[in-house]
Amino acid sequence: MKIPPVKGTRDFYPQDMAVRNWIIDGWKRVSLRNGFEEYDGPIFEYLQMFQIKSGDEIAEQLFSLKDRGDRDLALRPEITPTLARMVNQRISSLPMPIKWFSVPRLFRAERPQKGRLREFFQWNVDIIGVDDVLADAETIFCALDYLREAGLTPDDIVVKISSRKMLAVVLQAIGVAEGELDALYAVLDKRNKLADEAFEEMLQKQLPDTAKRQKVLELMSAETVEEIGSMFGRQEAFDELVTLMKWLDEMGVGSYCKFDPGIVRGLAYYTGIVYEIYDKESELRAIGGGGRYDDLLKQFGGPAVPATGFGIGDCVLGILLEEKGLLKPKTKEPDYFVACVDENYKGSAVEIAVQLRSRGYVAGFSYKAGKLGKQLKEASQQNAKKCIIIGEEFNNNQLVVKDMATSEQETIEVDKFFAELKP
Amino acid sequence: MKIPPVKGTRDFYPQDMAVRNWIIDGWKRVSLRNGFEEYDGPIFEYLQMFQIKSGDEIAEQLFSLKDRGDRDLALRPEITPTLARMVNQRISSLPMPIKWFSVPRLFRAERPQKGRLREFFQWNVDIIGVDDVLADAETIFCALDYLREAGLTPDDIVVKISSRKMLAVVLQAIGVAEGELDALYAVLDKRNKLADEAFEEMLQKQLPDTAKRQKVLELMSAETVEEIGSMFGRQEAFDELVTLMKWLDEMGVGSYCKFDPGIVRGLAYYTGIVYEIYDKESELRAIGGGGRYDDLLKQFGGPAVPATGFGIGDCVLGILLEEKGLLKPKTKEPDYFVACVDENYKGSAVEIAVQLRSRGYVAGFSYKAGKLGKQLKEASQQNAKKCIIIGEEFNNNQLVVKDMATSEQETIEVDKFFAELKP
Repeated sequence: MKIPPVKGTRDFYPQDMAVRNWIIDGWKRVSLRNGFEEYDGPIFEYLQMFQIKSGDEIAEQLFSLKDRGDRDLALRPEITPTLARMVNQRISSLPMPIKWFSVPRLFRAERPQKGRLREFFQWNVDIIGVDDVLADAETIFCALDYLREAGLTPDDIVVKISSRKMLAVVLQAIGVAEGELDALYAVLDKRNKLADEAFEEMLQKQLPDTAKRQKVLELMSAETVEEIGSMFGRQEAFDELVTLMKWLDEMGVGSYCKFDPGIVRGLAYYTGIVYEIYDKESELRAIGGGGRYDDLLKQFGGPAVPATGFGIGDCVLGILLEEKGLLKPKTKEPDYFVACVDENYKGSAVEIAVQLRSRGYVAGFSYKAGKLGKQLKEASQQNAKKCIIIGEEFNNNQLVVKDMATSEQETIEVDKFFAELKP
Repeated sequence: MKIPPVKGTRDFYPQDMAVRNWIIDGWKRVSLRNGFEEYDGPIFEYLQMFQIKSGDEIAEQLFSLKDRGDRDLALRPEITPTLARMVNQRISSLPMPIKWFSVPRLFRAERPQKGRLREFFQWNVDIIGVDDVLADAETIFCALDYLREAGLTPDDIVVKISSRKMLAVVLQAIGVAEGELDALYAVLDKRNKLADEAFEEMLQKQLPDTAKRQKVLELMSAETVEEIGSMFGRQEAFDELVTLMKWLDEMGVGSYCKFDPGIVRGLAYYTGIVYEIYDKESELRAIGGGGRYDDLLKQFGGPAVPATGFGIGDCVLGILLEEKGLLKPKTKEPDYFVACVDENYKGSAVEIAVQLRSRGYVAGFSYKAGKLGKQLKEASQQNAKKCIIIGEEFNNNQLVVKDMATSEQETIEVDKFFAELKP
């Protein structure tokens, strides 16, 4: 009986797994050096967890299931609600600031598309307990520290940055009521994701006044903070953006960053700086995005604690790195392959191989002790660096070591061989 | 609004995550040196996948969900069906033998108990395409290579080994029909998991004949292969067990292994050698188990290909390692903490910190450039190895490096400092 995999999921054969590990190992290494500690939560939570302040977009995309007590659960579509729950649970004992990262496997029940699967990994980096815009700069730096190390230059990617605080101030100056902001953000976030006509129809529904609509579109098209400043006057929210840009320059990643008032973010919980990372040609979906969410912990039953962070998925990033020829997964390369001249020495070959393994070396042997030439071919197919040959010399406690690159051979005492191995 | 986590799941705070990473990194390292390549599949598959030949026990324990097309899906309770599906999909192009490992996150909808959670990780190691018992020995060696390196001795753990082939031969000699074997295995597997009375009731129901039942219990209590041999005569299945034990001795792990005809394994798909790993005092559930499953690929619509492998979960293993004082998770220890004498040098401190990070060093700084003493205290609380102090010297392109262990300080040119960093 043959059963196919579920659409929108991935089978990770060893070569695919090597790519996944290479990407995720990079995320982990860069997170740690930037001072973040790893955490994780369960794959599923109570359904309600994801219905609090997550915006309609997320709620529609949940895989839901039930526990034995018939309670509604959902596979996590994001880890931020879990982060809020975990921090709130230990709010009185966790030292602040909290600098945590995670690489959760996430799920969306939507129709699979290029760069958007039903099951994916997402790098999440968050700082909780710091209201200074320096924390926003540090998280953006952390993302770029990885992307730059992976080989992506300012010609390849751009971080488009705006501020919900600035948007709120300016939109209210235009005449949008405070209570209508969240709904308008959700519409504005669609500008680059929908066809012009569909977007304009949505916007008109949300904002029937033509004059206001015109001003909103003008705002969204501004190229610099100063331009908006001259339209609507300077505000604290503008200064914050200017300070952020200054920090990013000082951190040496300013050339990757660009102010863009068109960045809004779909999720309702953002309160300050917001940003999205794109390929420079804008041919792909967003590589990632994030921002400040100072009210979230409170919405999850905790105290008001400032927070900022981002998420970067593995799908779009993987496509971009592949297009740019920057994927460099590790390949399998045994340190040793232990061959034997005939069946009588097979036991000894296996013994030597497993001793090498227990000392930390990658070592293989052949299940069928066939002809030596065949075993050497197997060693070569496996890309073994060295081949050990067990034969008559073994009766005198000696073995032959062959360098597979140079074909040089040497005969050596077994004890000496093991004594000389690097630890 | 406060929502609790789902019962039977775990929150991995950084200290818990460090333990999880330490265990899983060990599994991966040992798998690789034993010549296995990593793979993974989706978290969910079509429900049917897990209903094929998985035994009733598994089928009852599934978390089921639906996709948008209302098809039944299930969270994976084991990865072997996925492995069979993936291998079958590429059976004609994958070079044999296949030596693969995985560390899937698995799910069981049962009542959580000590060492048995609804969500856990399992180390899976499999060899596909080798019918030689050497492959069974190699997988058992791989498990022990890890467990021994973790510090567990033959006084701590035991691998109890038997053979379904031997059981089939002997049980049929006792008078059990071939068609009744699978159902009887499922009952016999419960012997150590149920109270005596409950087990005897189950066995009586399955095997009403008192004489046969008596003989089965005698068989299950034998201490050596020879003992069974003298009761029922020698068979090929017995020789296989003897050869396996000889291999395990040659591999240097014989002292961990013991023949035990009471080992049956609950899953229906085992066909040959079966084994389970226990703590020596048998105070915990099985640490892991495995065996040969030569018919599984065929049952999933592929050709008949021999296969053998094991699974070890993280829950019972974690409990045992903790009890024995063998958990050694990595702790956070920044290479550098960059402090500044006052707010004027904060930007430079951040700059130096992020430059260190991009060169691969773990480096921190303080968000509030408060008093230097307070920053040094922060450095000390974070266990930083060295503290860099940015002050007036920085105007002359110099910085101060303080060793946090010895309290020694030196003033050094910035360029020289970076030039002398180890790569």
